[in-house]
Amino acid sequence: MGEPNQHDLSSTDDVRTDAPLAHAKYVTFDEPLRLERGGNLPEVRCCYETWGTLDQDASNAILVCHAVSGDSHAARHAPDDQPGWWDGLIGPGLPIDTDRFFVVCPNVLGGCRGSTGPGDTDPTSTDAKPYGASFPRITIGDIVEVQKRLADHLGITKWRAIVGGSLGGHQALQWVNRYPDSTHTCVAIATSPRLNSQSLGFDVIARNAIQTDPHFAGGQYYDQPQRPDTGLAIARMLGHITYLSVEAMEAKFDPDRHDPRQIASQFEQRFSIGSYLAHQGQKFTTRFDANSYVTLSMAMDLFDLGGTRLKLMETFDEATCDFLVVSFSSDWLFPPAQSRDIVNALTALDKRVTYAEITTNAGHDAFLIAKDIATYGPLIRERLRETETHPAVATQNTLGVDEESILNIIPAGSSVLDLGCGNGDLLAAIRDRHVTPGHRLMGVEVAQGNILATAMRGIDVIDYDLNDGLPAFIDNQFDYVILNATLQAVQNVVELLNEMLRVGRHAIISFPNFAYRKLRDHYVTHGRSPKAPGEFDFDWYNTPNRRFPTIADVRELLEQMNVVVDQEIYWDVGEGFRIEPDNDPNLNADTAVIAFHRECQP
Amino acid sequence: MGEPNQHDLSSTDDVRTDAPLAHAKYVTFDEPLRLERGGNLPEVRCCYETWGTLDQDASNAILVCHAVSGDSHAARHAPDDQPGWWDGLIGPGLPIDTDRFFVVCPNVLGGCRGSTGPGDTDPTSTDAKPYGASFPRITIGDIVEVQKRLADHLGITKWRAIVGGSLGGHQALQWVNRYPDSTHTCVAIATSPRLNSQSLGFDVIARNAIQTDPHFAGGQYYDQPQRPDTGLAIARMLGHITYLSVEAMEAKFDPDRHDPRQIASQFEQRFSIGSYLAHQGQKFTTRFDANSYVTLSMAMDLFDLGGTRLKLMETFDEATCDFLVVSFSSDWLFPPAQSRDIVNALTALDKRVTYAEITTNAGHDAFLIAKDIATYGPLIRERLRETETHPAVATQNTLGVDEESILNIIPAGSSVLDLGCGNGDLLAAIRDRHVTPGHRLMGVEVAQGNILATAMRGIDVIDYDLNDGLPAFIDNQFDYVILNATLQAVQNVVELLNEMLRVGRHAIISFPNFAYRKLRDHYVTHGRSPKAPGEFDFDWYNTPNRRFPTIADVRELLEQMNVVVDQEIYWDVGEGFRIEPDNDPNLNADTAVIAFHRECQP
Repeated sequence: MGEPNQHDLSSTDDVRTDAPLAHAKYVTFDEPLRLERGGNLPEVRCCYETWGTLDQDASNAILVCHAVSGDSHAARHAPDDQPGWWDGLIGPGLPIDTDRFFVVCPNVLGGCRGSTGPGDTDPTSTDAKPYGASFPRITIGDIVEVQKRLADHLGITKWRAIVGGSLGGHQALQWVNRYPDSTHTCVAIATSPRLNSQSLGFDVIARNAIQTDPHFAGGQYYDQPQRPDTGLAIARMLGHITYLSVEAMEAKFDPDRHDPRQIASQFEQRFSIGSYLAHQGQKFTTRFDANSYVTLSMAMDLFDLGGTRLKLMETFDEATCDFLVVSFSSDWLFPPAQSRDIVNALTALDKRVTYAEITTNAGHDAFLIAKDIATYGPLIRERLRETETHPAVATQNTLGVDEESILNIIPAGSSVLDLGCGNGDLLAAIRDRHVTPGHRLMGVEVAQGNILATAMRGIDVIDYDLNDGLPAFIDNQFDYVILNATLQAVQNVVELLNEMLRVGRHAIISFPNFAYRKLRDHYVTHGRSPKAPGEFDFDWYNTPNRRFPTIADVRELLEQMNVVVDQEIYWDVGEGFRIEPDNDPNLNADTAVIAFHRECQP
Repeated sequence: MGEPNQHDLSSTDDVRTDAPLAHAKYVTFDEPLRLERGGNLPEVRCCYETWGTLDQDASNAILVCHAVSGDSHAARHAPDDQPGWWDGLIGPGLPIDTDRFFVVCPNVLGGCRGSTGPGDTDPTSTDAKPYGASFPRITIGDIVEVQKRLADHLGITKWRAIVGGSLGGHQALQWVNRYPDSTHTCVAIATSPRLNSQSLGFDVIARNAIQTDPHFAGGQYYDQPQRPDTGLAIARMLGHITYLSVEAMEAKFDPDRHDPRQIASQFEQRFSIGSYLAHQGQKFTTRFDANSYVTLSMAMDLFDLGGTRLKLMETFDEATCDFLVVSFSSDWLFPPAQSRDIVNALTALDKRVTYAEITTNAGHDAFLIAKDIATYGPLIRERLRETETHPAVATQNTLGVDEESILNIIPAGSSVLDLGCGNGDLLAAIRDRHVTPGHRLMGVEVAQGNILATAMRGIDVIDYDLNDGLPAFIDNQFDYVILNATLQAVQNVVELLNEMLRVGRHAIISFPNFAYRKLRDHYVTHGRSPKAPGEFDFDWYNTPNRRFPTIADVRELLEQMNVVVDQEIYWDVGEGFRIEPDNDPNLNADTAVIAFHRECQP
């Protein structure tokens, strides 16, 4: 395993070993595999591991896809087993629960941990040499094809879920594109529809380093005394920097930057970061094959589900599964913006999708780190729920009067988008009152706790900032778009209202009325900044509210915006009664609910 | 020059050539150079270029320091001359005006473009071999030492300015640390007090690639048929990615990512980014020496003026020059936060410093790019002004009544910090009314236009967000800290007020009074959100104002904060008269100016 290294940041390397895979199973497919880029492989061996038991109707199978340097050993099979790279996520009682599910993790085609790869004998070679650098160029699609054969072999026609991070996420997305009905759920973590140019550039450099290593020998180094370890180590060092966030590196290496641990290495060790990288680089060469690294990184670089939203929509158009997409704030290799590209295509297609950007300092590596798994794991657990039942919903008694009013406006069976949906109370109430299968309910939130809470109720929610508008949604996508008790927090009000009218056939907003008579009294009598009801924890100098609308202000704005008001419901919540529209609500109401729509598009 | 490449993003490579330096001058220093890390160089040759004429008292000399891959040819000497790497900044009538100044640009020690470096013959070698990898380890301090000898040689005892970007910035800062009286002005661009761990990691990998190149031959490759071009090219490719921002790379390479230009190269060219990098890598090997790259990158990596504010304050304590520090928003190799580390030390030492973070998509390369030079060049021009005269200051007539009131509160000769100083009107008025040399006037701003405007008046200004407090300043650093007509825009009000009281012996705030009677009337009568005077361009839904304080609100907060009010000046600006404090200013005044201080530290 190597000596313990206090600079080990990546759990991937903490647990990896070049020991044989004790639980590996193998199947060889005799039928030649035709490759996407041309050529074929006469036969393909697939190495895989499984956990749990496949149920009678083969309905509980989960496919786990590993990343570039991973393998089939995703998790322990027993407490005293070798650690697996996703031990925090997979196991008895864990989010991917091996007591309930039959979990399958295959080594990817082109890898060097059991499945057919460049290290295998080329059957067309006259002198039984390995493929080496002649291993045909493979794609993520080819990798998925082998996994499909494995599924057929195991009697699995539809996965309960396909789950993967990084390159594993590419596989999950490719599965859904190629076999749209192949899974109930697709979980894509720390991934992208294709690499951005910067990540592509790093990969190119890494491959160059390997291929120009003096011992690369055109990839035919297997029987040579030396391997292209230097090039491979350099490639791995580069990868390591890209997996880590700047903050994480500063915290680990700055304190003793001039105090490297001395290790036996050909690499420079003047700095502590240097000896760390040298150690990581060398460790990697003992367990990974350079040709495989080239093969798999090229597959990742060729992967391209689309660079525009339209193209991505074509890609996912026929998918029938629900999606969970997770990104990490400090991941600069697969940045959150690329996950949003995927989400924007899925929402525009009206697919079921939940998206969360997890706040973390751990960079791309976060998807493997216990602390971050503890944060996003519950989202996966929720997606894998056994039945459609959900935790007891908020009863009518716990909804505010504005929420109740909104509930009463919305006809049963409407599709609803709730902007700033909080913990999902209102959406859950709508669902449970108006249960009609197939009508889309979705929330938008930006606070991590609220996103998790809403998702945990089985309601799709996406992690977007309302001040950026609603780019994820297409015109007239929802019957109702709600902005409930959120207007005061919005910076770009007109833009958001226009977006609501674009995305929804109807819009409903609710807000505290800053012209409420008691607030006027307070202001006039005491000359103090008005405080909204419910604002009493805050003062003028620290209120999170950004806007202070009055009913008259809002009505005037709506008129200027050329909308038609469908309903206006006013309350004096403090006193506990309704205010009729002809009873000067601007003076007498503390809370307003206004439903409106736009007759003709601007 | 190489074929035109539409992917050329860096002007450095557009202009570079391996042609001999037509304007190079040389001087050899016979006295051995003792090196910081031990050992010495028996003799040192310095190659340099000059522009302009040294005046009689040698007071107009400017030292320009180049970056890792640069050289002495910073600018053209004539219109038909080879381009220089900083042509946008240096020349007749340009910010570094060769009609006024005597500009000197030396090739760094350890380089390969004329000055003594690893390619030179090692005088201790019995068979006249070059130093190669045996060239002693040098530091930025050693590089500066040679430049000092050059200054002595040219008869320059004090530079008008020392200017450098990236590694050149390291040199400028080192000069000031080692020779605190050596210059009037220090300009440090896109630089840092030391590399962060991520940048250090990339450098280590780059050096590893060079030193493990099969043709490196321990650095003794000069007379060999092959050079370590592959390793050097890989190092350069890596550097290229780090110089560019992600956005810039996306814009250039995404449209034709699968359509590489075919060039003759051993490097992979599957992608357009690949052929670009291959081209850049190869071009570099024709003009730069691998040993020099190792030598200079190591010098940069060893450079460390301090990782804490205290250490940085020790570093700059004795400096007598003024400083201009410039960073670029998308520079992730030398990120803005590291420039702020420098600035925080300088402000705490009460040094004259202006700091601007230039908004740009161009990444680290921005300091060389014409468009960005056009933005920051004026800041340099201002710093190099010939006399102390400045553009006509705003006369009293153009100051608002609140500014006039503030002016009258502040005794002549006070040091003043103006938070949210706008275009510097108030500070300029203070300076011109209360001219007493040596009393510090400084502004804080966050809008680029305002920063430039204030700096152009010869007033120091730093680019900081007030919502982060005032970390740049120490306790009781200023007689007065002003927050003029800015309170409404502040999110973290209490924190900022406390910071003002920490940093200033006295604080003065001015703000529009939201309890002004006409606003109350409007609110009460019409039930509409109150609009501050001057706010008439905005409505409730798009005002940039964040806070809506009344005089009563603010007085109460100040009481809670345990401050002593020194003066209160109230105005009805609209009507044009003062409101006495006993005439219910909360009702009758539309504008308030309050001066206060805290008796004892909390």
